[in-house]
Amino acid sequence: MITVLAGGVGAAKFLIGLLEVVDPQEVTAIVNVADDTTIHGLRISPDLDSCTYTLAGANDTERGWGLRGETWLAMEHLRRYAESNDVTNGDAAGWFNLGDRDLGTHLYRTSRLAAGRSLSQVSTEITKAWGIAATLLPASNSEIRTKVHTTDGRELAFQDYFVRERYDVEVASVTIDGLDTAVPAPGVLEAIAGAEVVLIAPSNPIVSIDPILAIPGIRNAMVARRNNVAAISPIVGGAALKGPADRLLRDLGHEPSVVGIARLYEEVAASLVIDIEDEALAPDVRAAGMNCVITDTIMRSAAISADLARTTLDTAAG
Amino acid sequence: MITVLAGGVGAAKFLIGLLEVVDPQEVTAIVNVADDTTIHGLRISPDLDSCTYTLAGANDTERGWGLRGETWLAMEHLRRYAESNDVTNGDAAGWFNLGDRDLGTHLYRTSRLAAGRSLSQVSTEITKAWGIAATLLPASNSEIRTKVHTTDGRELAFQDYFVRERYDVEVASVTIDGLDTAVPAPGVLEAIAGAEVVLIAPSNPIVSIDPILAIPGIRNAMVARRNNVAAISPIVGGAALKGPADRLLRDLGHEPSVVGIARLYEEVAASLVIDIEDEALAPDVRAAGMNCVITDTIMRSAAISADLARTTLDTAAG
Repeated sequence: MITVLAGGVGAAKFLIGLLEVVDPQEVTAIVNVADDTTIHGLRISPDLDSCTYTLAGANDTERGWGLRGETWLAMEHLRRYAESNDVTNGDAAGWFNLGDRDLGTHLYRTSRLAAGRSLSQVSTEITKAWGIAATLLPASNSEIRTKVHTTDGRELAFQDYFVRERYDVEVASVTIDGLDTAVPAPGVLEAIAGAEVVLIAPSNPIVSIDPILAIPGIRNAMVARRNNVAAISPIVGGAALKGPADRLLRDLGHEPSVVGIARLYEEVAASLVIDIEDEALAPDVRAAGMNCVITDTIMRSAAISADLARTTLDTAAG
Repeated sequence: MITVLAGGVGAAKFLIGLLEVVDPQEVTAIVNVADDTTIHGLRISPDLDSCTYTLAGANDTERGWGLRGETWLAMEHLRRYAESNDVTNGDAAGWFNLGDRDLGTHLYRTSRLAAGRSLSQVSTEITKAWGIAATLLPASNSEIRTKVHTTDGRELAFQDYFVRERYDVEVASVTIDGLDTAVPAPGVLEAIAGAEVVLIAPSNPIVSIDPILAIPGIRNAMVARRNNVAAISPIVGGAALKGPADRLLRDLGHEPSVVGIARLYEEVAASLVIDIEDEALAPDVRAAGMNCVITDTIMRSAAISADLARTTLDTAAG
């Protein structure tokens, strides 16, 4: 069994490669839920959905998120209302784009949760409908929510920061609400303890991986498996391939490099897989206390994703 | 000024005729909200939306509800999830059909209500976006909800009764939750007190008009205007043109005829407009205490709707 800590799009791409080289039924992804949100009354789980749609082969690779062949009629109508009434604040302004087919997922999830199902159960139902053989586990069924605190004194819900503000803000700190009562979803600790290897996908360490590790019990479970944990650096050449990881690391006083990543992951992972471009930094990664493996980590194709998965698996297996 | 008590589709059709013969800015419709519901986390106001879409000329006349040119991608996806998981109960089963464009209305309404706007304010925003010159007032901004109690002991929320069960149940009683704390929406009592005439649209007396009259203050306001109130019978030849009015009347011990309607409305309206088909019952309507006017009430065309509106206006004006 192979377990992967996963955020959204970067993790999904990695999972595609992984499923090329191992039996999908052997794979469990533990997916971040701290950027889940309720918008327009609908429960939205962006990382779970990114993983689901990608593993189903239904994702839009050009847009980089959401479903392929998507239409936007609901949002167009919503925005017409907003524009007619000069509504520029709040969900009603329509800054969070929801495709028509994607809405079906959120309508279903919202109703099933309201009917008393857990997020785990609903995720299982959704992945079943898409014919996904791998297991996608939400990290927690508790509502934990990332909050981004800006240097100008605002507290932003994660999607406000990420989508509405396009992460173009200076961040003073990131906190996670709900951790005091949160518990790992059923199967999460077992998936970490029982896996042959545990991989940390090339996801944002601050807002994707840390909110998984921060759930009481998970970090300790990872520490116990450290020797068989390998992470892939989401930072290549000092920059994130996508999203705000580099800027966030810098704003929060971390080095926006594979070395900064090594310092963050050293406690929970024995090895860090870095890109060829960062070869010169390998000694510094090792100095930070991690094994360091150098390979092509930029997943331009399924073949590269598969090679990366194979290398990471071998690394974690020692 | 002309005020109309209105339910959904039948009322909307009548309003179209009315707006042909008077200045739309003179018209206020007080619309039933007791069949509003929350489905998939979305606040849905079926009667307000039916009136809005129809007055905007955007309604689907063939289907009889919803928007013309509508697509159903969100629901198709939702149903795929439901079918894959044998979900046949609750909202998630997908029995309440929501078009993609229509969803834009519900997303907008839900967000605006969550942001603290009243249903009145949101309805004004929505009708403004559609360029509707008439005023659509929800009867109340309070959450009042029709409950249908069946003879086999079930309590059904209105949409469960109407859409899911297709009103194919025997009804023991109809109650309305939330009346003890409900108040008329701003402008409602003024629209009744200040209008030249008040019309009761050919809507279901039990589940469309009564939930308006039952809001504390409204029935008394209508009684005070009785001499200038005219109702159009929704029953023609002993049957409802659409929906469960006839069966409901019968189940609840009322006569499913213009005479039954007269007995229900006699307290609040001086006149009843009935269809030519029911001419023979005119004496019985009068015996029930109402003036009776006979005309063509089946709105097969805009011209007939306009004639019906003119006749009803003249009747109410005395």
